[in-house]
Parts: sequence; C-alpha cells; structure tokens
Amino acid sequence: MNNLYEQSIELHRKNGGKLELKSKVPLLNKEDLSLAYTPGVAGVCLAIADDKELASVYTLKKNTVAIVSDGTAILGLGDLGPLAAIPVMEGKAAIFKEFGGVDAFPICLDTKDTEEIIRAVKLIAPVFGGINLEDISAPRCFEIEERLRKELNIPVMHDDQWGAATVTLSALINALKIIGINKSEAVVVLSGVGAAGVATGRLLHTYGITNTIFCDSKGIINSKRDNLNKEKIELLKGSTISEKDGDLAVAVKNANIFIGLSKPNVLTVEMVKSMASKPVIFALANPSPEITPELAHEAGAYVVATGRSDYPNQINNSLVFPGAFKAMLDNKIPQFENKIFITIAEALAQVVENPTPERIIPSMFDAGVKDAVYNAVSSLK
Amino acid sequence: MNNLYEQSIELHRKNGGKLELKSKVPLLNKEDLSLAYTPGVAGVCLAIADDKELASVYTLKKNTVAIVSDGTAILGLGDLGPLAAIPVMEGKAAIFKEFGGVDAFPICLDTKDTEEIIRAVKLIAPVFGGINLEDISAPRCFEIEERLRKELNIPVMHDDQWGAATVTLSALINALKIIGINKSEAVVVLSGVGAAGVATGRLLHTYGITNTIFCDSKGIINSKRDNLNKEKIELLKGSTISEKDGDLAVAVKNANIFIGLSKPNVLTVEMVKSMASKPVIFALANPSPEITPELAHEAGAYVVATGRSDYPNQINNSLVFPGAFKAMLDNKIPQFENKIFITIAEALAQVVENPTPERIIPSMFDAGVKDAVYNAVSSLK
Repeated sequence: MNNLYEQSIELHRKNGGKLELKSKVPLLNKEDLSLAYTPGVAGVCLAIADDKELASVYTLKKNTVAIVSDGTAILGLGDLGPLAAIPVMEGKAAIFKEFGGVDAFPICLDTKDTEEIIRAVKLIAPVFGGINLEDISAPRCFEIEERLRKELNIPVMHDDQWGAATVTLSALINALKIIGINKSEAVVVLSGVGAAGVATGRLLHTYGITNTIFCDSKGIINSKRDNLNKEKIELLKGSTISEKDGDLAVAVKNANIFIGLSKPNVLTVEMVKSMASKPVIFALANPSPEITPELAHEAGAYVVATGRSDYPNQINNSLVFPGAFKAMLDNKIPQFENKIFITIAEALAQVVENPTPERIIPSMFDAGVKDAVYNAVSSLK
Repeated sequence: MNNLYEQSIELHRKNGGKLELKSKVPLLNKEDLSLAYTPGVAGVCLAIADDKELASVYTLKKNTVAIVSDGTAILGLGDLGPLAAIPVMEGKAAIFKEFGGVDAFPICLDTKDTEEIIRAVKLIAPVFGGINLEDISAPRCFEIEERLRKELNIPVMHDDQWGAATVTLSALINALKIIGINKSEAVVVLSGVGAAGVATGRLLHTYGITNTIFCDSKGIINSKRDNLNKEKIELLKGSTISEKDGDLAVAVKNANIFIGLSKPNVLTVEMVKSMASKPVIFALANPSPEITPELAHEAGAYVVATGRSDYPNQINNSLVFPGAFKAMLDNKIPQFENKIFITIAEALAQVVENPTPERIIPSMFDAGVKDAVYNAVSSLK
C-alpha cells in the first residue's frame, strides 16, 4: 500500500490536484468577450432575473453538482478535516465527469456543526443543480440529508448512504437469483449500522427483504436494547425478525446473507460455517473486509463480494452516482427517493446477463452501466 | 444592444452555461482509479492531515479561486439576486482561465446579510487558494473584504474596488505623463464614491495623488457634511483639498482630471470647458458614460477613457485580476495590499511604450499584459 500511496502523492503533486475549470466558449477577441461577458451577458442576467428557471438552462447550474463534505468520515480513515478531504472529492468529481458527463465541484466545509453545514449548503445552492453529500459521519449525515431534501429545491443525495445501499441491493438481487431464494424468504444479517448500514437496511425493507437482523458493536439490535438512536429504532420496526438476542455469531446462524458495512475481521470462519447452505458474504469494509474472500471461500461461502477492485464482485458506489445525477439533472427530477434507488439497483443487476458467483455486479468500466442507470432514472420522470 | 443580448442568450442556451470541470489525470482503467481515487488517494489525504500546507500542493487549492457574489450589484443592473449573477461570474471564471491560467469557480450566495456572507466564505474557504469578491453592493462590500482579509489566511480582493482602482491609476499615470503634470500637482475630481470610487481614492492617496475632490449624489464631500460614512470620512482625511463646497460643476473648475465612477451624463460640456488646460476625462460609468467621448472631445478634452471596448482607452478590470491572482497563488503571497495594486498599475502603464491620448492603457489582448502584471506582483514576494 505504501508504494501506491507514494505513486498517488506524486500524481497529485505533479498535476497540482486533479481538477481544472475550462471555458466552453471561445474568448479570442473583443467580439467573443462581448457575448460571453459584458455587455452581452447582461441580457442573460436580465432573462434569469425575469424567470429564475432559466438559470438551469443558461448557466452551469444545468449540469453542475456540489460534492459537499466536512471531512469527518474520509474513506475508512475517519475525521481528518476538510483540507484532507479535498483529494477524495476531486477524485469523485473526476469520476462524475468521466462516467456521467456531470460537472462536479468539491465543497469542503470548515465546520462539523449540523446547522452550519445545512445553512452553508443552502447559501451556496444557487449555482448547483444537485448536491452530493460525501464522507459526513453518522448520525449527523441523516439529519443533514433529510433537512436539505426538504429545504432545497434541487436533488440531494448522501452517497455513502444511497450509493452503497443501491449497489449492495443490486448485487443482492443477482445473488438471490444464483442461490435460488426468494426475497421474501431470504434471511439477511447486516453488520454495521452507520450511514451505509442504515440506508441499506431501509432500502432492503422498501424492496421487500424484511427478514433482517442488524448488529452494531454491542450485538444484535432488538427492543430490549436501550439508547437506540431513531434510525436504529426505525430499522427494527421494518424487520420481521426482532426477537433475536446476542452477538454476531448468534445473528448469522442459519442466515442466507451476511452484509458487512462495519470493521475488518469481525466475521469468522466458524460463523460462515454456521450459516444456511450456499452462504452469501458481502464483506464491504474497505480496504480490509470483515473476512477475506480466501477465508470466506474456505469456510464454504458460495458468493463473496467486497469493496475492493482486486477481487471479483466489487460493490462500488461509482456504478451509481454519475449516471443517476446526470439523469436527475437532465430530466429535472425534483428529489431522490427510495423508488429511484430500487429502480437503479434492478437495472444494474440486469446489466449482468448471466450472473455467476464470480460476477453478480458489473464493473464501472463495463459498457452499458451508465446508460442502464441513466435510463432507469429517466424512466421515472 | 437587444441583438447582442439575443446572441448572448443563444450562446448560453446552446452551451448550457460557459464553464465545465475537467480531470487533469486519466481515468481509463482500474490502475488509474487506484491512484486518482481509492485506495491510493488515502495516502494524499493522510499526508495533508499531517501537514495542512500540502493542500496547496496536492489539490486544486493550489490554483483555484472562488468568485463570490450575492448578486446585489450585477454589472450596472443592480440587485438581481444570486441566480442572475451566475452568467457574469462564469464569464469572469472563463477570463481567469484564458488570461491568467487560474481555475476559478462561481459561488453565488443566497443571502445579502454581511455576517452570513462572511461566514459562508469562511466555511467554504478550505478548497480555495484565493477569494475574488464580485458585484457586492457598497457599503457592505468594504466590511466583507476587510473582515475576510483578517479572518482568512488566503488572499481576498473585491475586484469592483481594486481592479477598477488599479487600472484607473495605471491609465492616470500615463495620462499625467502626456499632459506633463506631476502627481503631486495634479488636481483630480472623483465623481461617485461607491465601491470603485472609494478604492480608487484610497489608491490615489497611497500613490501620492492627494489633490483630490470627491463628489457623491449630494455634491462635494467636505467636513461640513453630516452623515458621511466612515469610508468618505477617511477619504476626506487623505485629501489636501477639503475646503471646497458645492456641486460637481464647482468641483471640476480648474481641475486636471475627472474620474467618473458614477452615473450616465453627469458631466456636461460646460464643466469640461471649465477645467484646466488639457483636461483628462475618465468617464467610466458602464455602458453609458458620464459624458460621451464625442462630447468630451468637442468640449476640449485632451485624453478620454471609458469602460467600453468600442472606444480607445478601455479601463478594464480584466487587465488585472487574472495575472494578479496567478502571481499571488504561485508565490503564496499571503494577502493583497495597496502596495501590490500600485506596483501592478505602474507595470501596466509601462506596457504602453509611447503613451498617446488615444493609448494610455493596453488592451487585455495585448501580448505582455499578463506577464507584466504577474512579474510585478511576483517581485513583491
């Protein structure tokens, strides 16, 4: 990893970051300037002042998303602050453009205060057609997203929640096909109830996978537990299995699916062996998964997915956000909602024509991914 | 003008605004992604977390400026709001890139509250290497700039103030050469004491032009006036001529220079005729000047400058900000100050090798402008 870190630092140093702004119109002479800038641009300003909707036609608002972070949950590294978050947000912006044709700009906020984050995003919103929240720690991320969806008139999505949830559901749809179990029968254990875990639980329930057991660092979440936050209480209400009590080992016994969005090495060989036949293991902690694919297979896992690009079945948010935002912007769909994510998950699952244990989800480099996501969202217009 | 407005609207509609974001690094395969994004990018994040200065080396902060407006003073159009400001800020960003190699991004704020503007800029500052304030109405613009210069550790410049002041001083330096009057003898009347007028007055005083008379809509500013704001009181203190009393006609009598940063048609033929020999007229209200160049010349003006590109001697902020910010960023100069603007003004004046009444200031398309500004600022490192 050290060598990869050094190579990446050199790439960033050499280029002075990864993003640049470019003009789409020429500025070669006075005539060009008189249209792109004064005096001609006054006509565009007056038109927008007269009809505010035209800002989404005549300006960068049409195709530009803010990637907003406070740097409190950068990758798996934790709270490194807004400056250290910039390289991740720039990378995301580069992916937005390359894989979705969306212009995206990093906004790294120098505050961790929920109200200040909400206010700041509202203040800068005029220039943007959408807001991608990123690497904001739970539970603040839930309120920030919920409030911004209500208080802004542009689409808002916390990618650590819904990107992860959507790709996970997509992979799960194909995994269930392979092991031949119906979504209403499948028993799913979810380890980790942070941003991604909560959203994945919500999305599974909306989709109709409700035999769910949630585990956090204190064990199985059930009604006997006190001090549960409102997200965990809500997840419990959506589950048909709420009587279980104990630790992760108790939870996974006879389960069909394990979804880890938690910590390295929490799933043991013995636990996998205790699961129902043809166990499906999504070990998504990154870069070190809940169990290595090698150990999981040794223990009898039938399908294994991780967050990593060096194993089969990478659960990768980048499959979703570029095409999803592009479709939201192009079709002026007012807000994200669970129905949109489920439609995307189903479309992504169908990109894999004949799912196998080694291929339940496409790669972001596969042809057809962007169009599948884009068309799925556009169909909901 | 209507035809120009329509052409400009069509240009903006066709392109969906003027700016796009681009990646400077390739994203063609998993290897590219592993360096530009996870897992390699974690190395860059950790390095910045360890040494925050590295954000200006490894990220877009190195070369990126925010163009911040609240849309309260858009061009000469007034308060049209943040959405209608976007086309101007995009145009500015395009000029930043084309004429200075600076990446600039428009931030149009949905508030007019001074404290909220200051707070918002501070919250979004991590991503930026500099702040260009734009089209924020007086007198709020003064406090906003002053506070941000103190409270942020990156250069902050309100271009409507200092861009205008710097180019005006530059043109004045060459005009004084032509009419053969020393800066300590020149009598200068300044009409209009808004953002540009206040900054121009301050810069003239710092430069050593102190025989100044300031006029606002109520006439000459002198110590008998009550309710003067603190900027006007400060200008009065810097002037050697403070006893005059009356209107603009009184002010310009026997003056050498008229600088209008005010309203169309306030300067009459008779007023020009009452000035000292070889009158210099800077009629900078845009697009309709304080007196048309035709009338000014008829009245005996020796040198005439305007803000317009269709007459000789265009006083144009775009001569300054691209090269100035580029040099501030490259040399990590901590803050703008008057000395920097005076050095730029002198360097710009020297770009015109043999000043004539028709050419006291270069065009932004002249070779050598950017280098002159860049080198002038860099010399102060």
